[in-house]
Amino acid sequence: MNPKRLAAVPVPEFVLRAGSVRSGERVVSDEVPIAFSYGGTTHAVMMATPADLKDFAVGFSLTEGIIADPAEIVGIDIVDEGRGIDVQVTLAEPVADALHARRRHMAGPVGCGLCGIESIEQALRPVRFVGDGELRLRSEEIVEAVRALGAAQHLNRQTHAVHGAGFYVPGKGVVAIREDVGRHNALDKLCGAVAGAGLRGGDGAVVVTSRLSVEMVQKAAVLGSRFLLAVSAPTLLAIETAEQAGVTLVAVVRGEDFEVFTYADRISFPGAVADVA
Amino acid sequence: MNPKRLAAVPVPEFVLRAGSVRSGERVVSDEVPIAFSYGGTTHAVMMATPADLKDFAVGFSLTEGIIADPAEIVGIDIVDEGRGIDVQVTLAEPVADALHARRRHMAGPVGCGLCGIESIEQALRPVRFVGDGELRLRSEEIVEAVRALGAAQHLNRQTHAVHGAGFYVPGKGVVAIREDVGRHNALDKLCGAVAGAGLRGGDGAVVVTSRLSVEMVQKAAVLGSRFLLAVSAPTLLAIETAEQAGVTLVAVVRGEDFEVFTYADRISFPGAVADVA
Repeated sequence: MNPKRLAAVPVPEFVLRAGSVRSGERVVSDEVPIAFSYGGTTHAVMMATPADLKDFAVGFSLTEGIIADPAEIVGIDIVDEGRGIDVQVTLAEPVADALHARRRHMAGPVGCGLCGIESIEQALRPVRFVGDGELRLRSEEIVEAVRALGAAQHLNRQTHAVHGAGFYVPGKGVVAIREDVGRHNALDKLCGAVAGAGLRGGDGAVVVTSRLSVEMVQKAAVLGSRFLLAVSAPTLLAIETAEQAGVTLVAVVRGEDFEVFTYADRISFPGAVADVA
Repeated sequence: MNPKRLAAVPVPEFVLRAGSVRSGERVVSDEVPIAFSYGGTTHAVMMATPADLKDFAVGFSLTEGIIADPAEIVGIDIVDEGRGIDVQVTLAEPVADALHARRRHMAGPVGCGLCGIESIEQALRPVRFVGDGELRLRSEEIVEAVRALGAAQHLNRQTHAVHGAGFYVPGKGVVAIREDVGRHNALDKLCGAVAGAGLRGGDGAVVVTSRLSVEMVQKAAVLGSRFLLAVSAPTLLAIETAEQAGVTLVAVVRGEDFEVFTYADRISFPGAVADVA
């Protein structure tokens, strides 16, 4: 990759603040077209922050169902094309053959919006049930996980404009974090980092700074985590999908307060008062 | 459309607040797969709030370059398929033929991420230059536009989790606003509403609640507006694209303060002090 690619770049600006106008500077995130190619054919182009692209390739391949295990990727070459970056993924032969067959099946008029998925039914593909794990969380661990994610967002501290996704393991804290201008990309990068490091999704909670749309739940379920914690609010479809996937959805985590939408029985609230009024 | 589809739905939850746990209820936005079909073939599926779907169809068709004018759409049928909604667009014959030819050209392995665009070059398609207009804004109009957008976000007042896009005309205020769980969708819906009402994009400013990624600038340029105002921050590529498109990019509008990244000479700051220290 071009060593000049920076995730955060200072740009000139004019600032109106408290009634004064002056020249200033703001650090912004770069946003670059990232093409994912398998066997020499482009599969998708995502607008993303040019960082952690190998994690992104592994995570995207996992969450799109192209691979089931990072070991099915034989090689990743990152080729900077100037106006964008081509991430060339080489798959193990049986997986490459399966993708080729799937592509032939899907060929025809181009569809998109959901990464190559053309129909409503495909958009609502069944999620894996991950509810059989044993992980439980205490309320203060949820608060700690979100706080630790915030503290670890180095790119966001510079730009105030990128999303973060982290993996929280009780007793160990946030053991992985990835950032991106796109919330889906941040979570894909995290999935790649967690799976690539050989961590088990079932041993921890996925923590994100963003709203919870359905794809965020689908990705957390692919990783095998049965907890998804978010700073912002969920959509109705995200809640319904979490119900199906067996994922405990915790959202609107602000300071020491939060809201639980599914499988609340996996959370204990030591010290809290039950308000049954 | 199924009359039972609601953009905002109350759901049960458990709330931990100030050390007390209780059962509660939160109003969340629904999120539904919306398929856009042209001539009976699905072009894209977007996850979106099920509201203002005709505006969405017009705006999506415009910003994707499928049509150049709303009059090129002969009919829009909204068919609720249960798990999702199929928005069936009928194009005037020459436009339908052009789309068919474009599709044949693009047929092959399925790509996506940017609505049917397969390559990096296509992702960075040239933007229309809209800088030749005459609209100028005063700093207090920028502040007013963002404040008025906030006041008009009815769905967000219920859900606190949807994006808004508005069209501000000096002297008239925010004359159109659309909301969606997705910021691109909100802007597409707005483009459809503005163009569909016969308003000229050059007569006003596009105002959004979200971050400014490159697609937001591309869509504002398609509408023909030379001002794009945002509550949050831009990416580097958004700034570069605004420079090319001749769009004045104003971001991080908070209270009476804001930052200007391109073509600041179109904004006057009556009453402000020039701080040249």
